Amino acid sequence: MDRVMEGKEIDILYHLGLDTTQDLSIFKDVKFVCMGGSAVRAASFAEDLRKRFTPDVEGPPQPVGKTERYHIYKVGSILSASHGIGMPSMLIMLHEVAKLLHYAGATNVQYIRIGTCGGIGSEPGTVCVTTAGCIGTLEPVYEAIELGERKKYSAAVDSALVERLIQVAGELKIPAVSGMTMGTDDFYEAQGRLDGALRPSFTEADKMAFLKKAYDAGVRNIEMESTAFAAFCQRAKIRGGIICAALVNRLNGDQVTSTPQQLGEYSLHAQTVVSEYMWQELHTKDADDDSSAAKRARCT
Amino acid sequence: MDRVMEGKEIDILYHLGLDTTQDLSIFKDVKFVCMGGSAVRAASFAEDLRKRFTPDVEGPPQPVGKTERYHIYKVGSILSASHGIGMPSMLIMLHEVAKLLHYAGATNVQYIRIGTCGGIGSEPGTVCVTTAGCIGTLEPVYEAIELGERKKYSAAVDSALVERLIQVAGELKIPAVSGMTMGTDDFYEAQGRLDGALRPSFTEADKMAFLKKAYDAGVRNIEMESTAFAAFCQRAKIRGGIICAALVNRLNGDQVTSTPQQLGEYSLHAQTVVSEYMWQELHTKDADDDSSAAKRARCT
Repeated sequence: MDRVMEGKEIDILYHLGLDTTQDLSIFKDVKFVCMGGSAVRAASFAEDLRKRFTPDVEGPPQPVGKTERYHIYKVGSILSASHGIGMPSMLIMLHEVAKLLHYAGATNVQYIRIGTCGGIGSEPGTVCVTTAGCIGTLEPVYEAIELGERKKYSAAVDSALVERLIQVAGELKIPAVSGMTMGTDDFYEAQGRLDGALRPSFTEADKMAFLKKAYDAGVRNIEMESTAFAAFCQRAKIRGGIICAALVNRLNGDQVTSTPQQLGEYSLHAQTVVSEYMWQELHTKDADDDSSAAKRARCT
Repeated sequence: MDRVMEGKEIDILYHLGLDTTQDLSIFKDVKFVCMGGSAVRAASFAEDLRKRFTPDVEGPPQPVGKTERYHIYKVGSILSASHGIGMPSMLIMLHEVAKLLHYAGATNVQYIRIGTCGGIGSEPGTVCVTTAGCIGTLEPVYEAIELGERKKYSAAVDSALVERLIQVAGELKIPAVSGMTMGTDDFYEAQGRLDGALRPSFTEADKMAFLKKAYDAGVRNIEMESTAFAAFCQRAKIRGGIICAALVNRLNGDQVTSTPQQLGEYSLHAQTVVSEYMWQELHTKDADDDSSAAKRARCT
């Protein structure tokens, strides 16, 4: 984060239910912030992480701060958080978590969004790793209006992290693709769905033509957060990645028709890849540190 | 709703956890859908409504459908629902609730969004009744991108409902103003806040100049849902209103500094107005119906 809260005595992280009068030092060791829309998934992922990363700690993990809007769990050096649906909801959490970790003195933190999505040419269960977010016109940007002026920010994603996530998915034999992710501000018309409550201005044939055009432009999935997430991470100089499990292949239909059991299994695919990625990152780093320490020890 | 789901055997209202294979007839009598961001407020409002409208029913009300994304409570002919933060999250609920009520055969349903907001020239506790939503450029529209094309929809609100809500607030001696409501896709930079995690492109002076310009254009408050809500209701031919309690006067500062007790009290202001409005609507209508029934009885 390139901004220091200068001249401020107290900062109230209103939506998290935390503020700078509290002791935030427990967050100093955070290295990963994993986030997704659902509070239920944030909790279950936190419990899965506890079993793997901190098995000696009694579970299940309890949320930090207030839970009216977001749920945040801390498991070792990992936060598992829910951001609700859509960019506006997620941005509040991104701003307040970034401030929280800044105040706590955490460094080199990676943010990973773990979501569900509609695949474009990707079958249910495939994990889609985002190379860049794009808006509905297929431009790879996040659009905002600030003080009456329209702004565009790049929505590209750290390419080294994309490669690592694809590599780890391969090691786990989980089907994975990388490509652009269309981030929309609506689940129905903005994603070309014909099954919303309103009479859309387009036909089934229009929709299929657009989805094919998006595919040809390199879009592999559609969700509701990618452009704002990518732009935020880039501006804040945070290494950030997005990995989503496809629940439906939109080239075959609009509705989510898999069973709840299948959906649960598909969602787990993305979590499993991220869990393994973090395990490798933390343990390789530990190994590096050990090796450095060993080298230093030899020199003394 | 002007759309009939033709040729569909089953419609899955995925995010509500309901579908058309279930008996949805309990929703046939619904006349009001009240909604706000927070699940906690949806529950407490439902309980307040139960005590007033259906005191013989044991409480507290239990949510309908799944609660992973949204919480919906039914109290007599009223639904109290949470839609999360922001337009993308709210739109999913609007589409799926409108379809639900359509399938259930409910008629003449009014939708009222009860929120919290930043006031512009309105002190904390004032209720702001929306005459139209506007985007950050101050145009009274909702903007969308559908199949690659940019669209604008009118975000005007039913003026008769605005007048009634202002009238009821007056009867209850709750401070109220009406005016345009700026609906933004972000709580920080898009609302001109300087206290987010990113270095904004504007200064305190720029912000104040913009807020004053917005005030002069007729904007009285800022929240994150107004334009999409107003446009949805207008397109779906639903009578819809928006009433929000100001938690801060943005002409005086950015941060929410009231105590939790004060904030709870302010939030209640908007709920109290809506509760009284619905009471009057239902009981005046009942009186009309009784009177019509009496007339019909006299004619037979």
